[in-house]
Amino acid sequence: MRESEPSTETKVEAAEAAALDLANVSDDDRSAALRAVADAIEDAADEILDANETDVAAAEEKLAAGDYTQSFVDRLTLDAAKVESIAEMVRSVADQRDPLGETLEARRLDEALELYKVGVPIGVVATVFESRPDALVQIAALALKSGNAVILKGGSEATHSNRVLYELIRDATDEMPDGWAQLIEAREDVDTLLGMDESVDLVMPRGSSAFVQYVQDNTKIPVLGHTEGVCHVYVDRDADLDTAADVALDAKVQYPAVCNAVETLLVHASVADEFLPDVLARYDDAGVELRGDDRTREIAADADVDVTPAREADWTQEYGDLVLAVKVVDSLDDAVAHVNANGSKHTESILTDDADRAGDFMRRVDAASVFHNASTRFADGYRYGLGAEVGISTGKIHARGPVGLDGLTTYKYYLEGDGQLVASYAGENPKPFLHEEFDGEWVPGHLSDS
Amino acid sequence: MRESEPSTETKVEAAEAAALDLANVSDDDRSAALRAVADAIEDAADEILDANETDVAAAEEKLAAGDYTQSFVDRLTLDAAKVESIAEMVRSVADQRDPLGETLEARRLDEALELYKVGVPIGVVATVFESRPDALVQIAALALKSGNAVILKGGSEATHSNRVLYELIRDATDEMPDGWAQLIEAREDVDTLLGMDESVDLVMPRGSSAFVQYVQDNTKIPVLGHTEGVCHVYVDRDADLDTAADVALDAKVQYPAVCNAVETLLVHASVADEFLPDVLARYDDAGVELRGDDRTREIAADADVDVTPAREADWTQEYGDLVLAVKVVDSLDDAVAHVNANGSKHTESILTDDADRAGDFMRRVDAASVFHNASTRFADGYRYGLGAEVGISTGKIHARGPVGLDGLTTYKYYLEGDGQLVASYAGENPKPFLHEEFDGEWVPGHLSDS
Repeated sequence: MRESEPSTETKVEAAEAAALDLANVSDDDRSAALRAVADAIEDAADEILDANETDVAAAEEKLAAGDYTQSFVDRLTLDAAKVESIAEMVRSVADQRDPLGETLEARRLDEALELYKVGVPIGVVATVFESRPDALVQIAALALKSGNAVILKGGSEATHSNRVLYELIRDATDEMPDGWAQLIEAREDVDTLLGMDESVDLVMPRGSSAFVQYVQDNTKIPVLGHTEGVCHVYVDRDADLDTAADVALDAKVQYPAVCNAVETLLVHASVADEFLPDVLARYDDAGVELRGDDRTREIAADADVDVTPAREADWTQEYGDLVLAVKVVDSLDDAVAHVNANGSKHTESILTDDADRAGDFMRRVDAASVFHNASTRFADGYRYGLGAEVGISTGKIHARGPVGLDGLTTYKYYLEGDGQLVASYAGENPKPFLHEEFDGEWVPGHLSDS
Repeated sequence: MRESEPSTETKVEAAEAAALDLANVSDDDRSAALRAVADAIEDAADEILDANETDVAAAEEKLAAGDYTQSFVDRLTLDAAKVESIAEMVRSVADQRDPLGETLEARRLDEALELYKVGVPIGVVATVFESRPDALVQIAALALKSGNAVILKGGSEATHSNRVLYELIRDATDEMPDGWAQLIEAREDVDTLLGMDESVDLVMPRGSSAFVQYVQDNTKIPVLGHTEGVCHVYVDRDADLDTAADVALDAKVQYPAVCNAVETLLVHASVADEFLPDVLARYDDAGVELRGDDRTREIAADADVDVTPAREADWTQEYGDLVLAVKVVDSLDDAVAHVNANGSKHTESILTDDADRAGDFMRRVDAASVFHNASTRFADGYRYGLGAEVGISTGKIHARGPVGLDGLTTYKYYLEGDGQLVASYAGENPKPFLHEEFDGEWVPGHLSDS
């Protein structure tokens, strides 16, 4: 990065030390620091845009050489409106309710022996992301609001943008424990980071399937994220077909490069003849390459739409592009079975006007998000009302789907006693436990005060 | 196990299929199945005790040969009262509130677009445990109550006991989805299991540090558990010293072989002269081998108690036996720093009558459980009122401390719409989101009903 830059080990250890202090900074102070970050970003808009121009110029050379795609360069590019929206996002994270300190459970184990389960930060979270410089700010903001120290590793294509944004954040939060946010820049530093499972509590990779898989395969740190999003839209026999066509289109065409775009359209056999000709023509008009099973292809041929034969691999592929696999299924059971066998547990949608069939599909499909009569593209932390997201998890442990502030917290058990021994509750004539749940907040030492 | 026994792969796949169905079995049916298990265990008490006698006889030969310890054989041994208590434990798990189906959050994203976060089972959980045959029943009961399929691998020393108990459970739950509980017996099957990260959602090893470490190092499945419990009792300058001595004794002596027993006693310098002579003598009388820092040894020498010099490694060692490290610290800050540097994030206790100092210690110590004026030995799922526990986690992701039913659940997002497109909320003149939280339970399709 520059001369006398500390090593990755030193940075991670600094974050670890800061995390212990940050856990006990008040919500008022954490939120005030975030508002200072938002102001600093607005004040330094020109500096941010200058740095971004340097990154974009380099990226455009790679675009011309065929190394980058236009959408990659688009995601990298900031403008004045975008910088303002980043500042607003930081303020909206500051305005979220404090995710820390809430008493999640209170249980009286015995007289004057009270157990409290209280929300606390995880500690040190690390993220590795690419392209979009706003991701750095989003993740840092969520980490600070939730009291976590954070290690940020962006893509090399955004080096100048990320460095300016990181330094603005660090300087604007100088009242926070020193070292709470750390930037690492070199690819090889990622491997150092992944080896520090004693110091880093959670890693959230955002990027290509191959990269997320690499992280999962090369660390003992718990990983939250997703390698792929093979999402389905299932058009049931009882669907409103006009609505279904609009939703199915939106789910693919509105933004095909993202993980919550649909990859496979499943259509109940009893409505396929009526539904498919029009929707396939609309996909075709929108430039979507279609791959179908035999029944889909027969209907498409009658409607004069070109659908190539889907191969087995098409049912499990995330295209991330204007390509769609289409299959006719004989029943809701077959749709559920296809999704559970081929999906990636990300986001699935059923289109039907039959409430029972909707419930059946939604309960039986094993995915982080299951929708009824809505586009899969709604699976997103901002749309879900989480303020922002650090990523989307397809795992089933800790946090599922879009991960916001709640996914960056854990809990701690506090037990308040007045000198109780386990020996009293064991052996001959043990004292019984009460185990009564009650409403109450943890107040340290309140038993000895009374 | 026996001829025509299915392979581990087949068993895990059967569990995976069963999990999808078990997720939608009602609480009444799951609980009724558990009560049938409790009845079956009582009815088959003689058969269980016969099988256990076979295991115990073999274990006693190994005890005589010096391969097993007496406490290991004790944990393996069942009697009629123990069998009855196992049946009662199963009933108490059946009586717990349903951990599934609860709406954890409901948020109106827009008119007729409602997001629900609902508790669901994880899927397939696997446990590997040793010695105590009641562990098999405890884990299977918690898994069934929480709607999870379970893979059970017990220790070879309990083969006959485990097999009888497993078959009783399987037969008594024949109304549940076929294959929901699977027993694997061979050591090499553990490696097969650990490789099936596509099918198994969570593994919880219970056993030696080395074994838990082996599991963590050899699987991509998320692991919940602990490799060690280096727990501290800190006697503050404002402690009631009589109470402190009783608690410090209980934390070590009441059951030294377990992970929540204290391993290091920290004593504030201003009370060390008054506190240590008596408590060290009591430890000595109880047969506890003492290792101390220089200041502790000086005080001990004056009191004529033998304390050997503690080496650096003593501060991070889990003795799991009647051995204790003792250190004098100059301040609460030093106590916190010692615990955070040397502890294993399991259970820590402060003894003080000063509420502010208690709160300070409890907030700043990074551990799953932090106690005030109570023995570390209370860190246990049964004592916490969780009904039972599948293990104790020192990780910070998903579940911390004693893990009961809540730790075996995750959540799913359900979105109910009436055909919304993301395109309406993006681009020029986007519709705004409402993002209003409301009280409500997810009812599939209720928007289209109205």
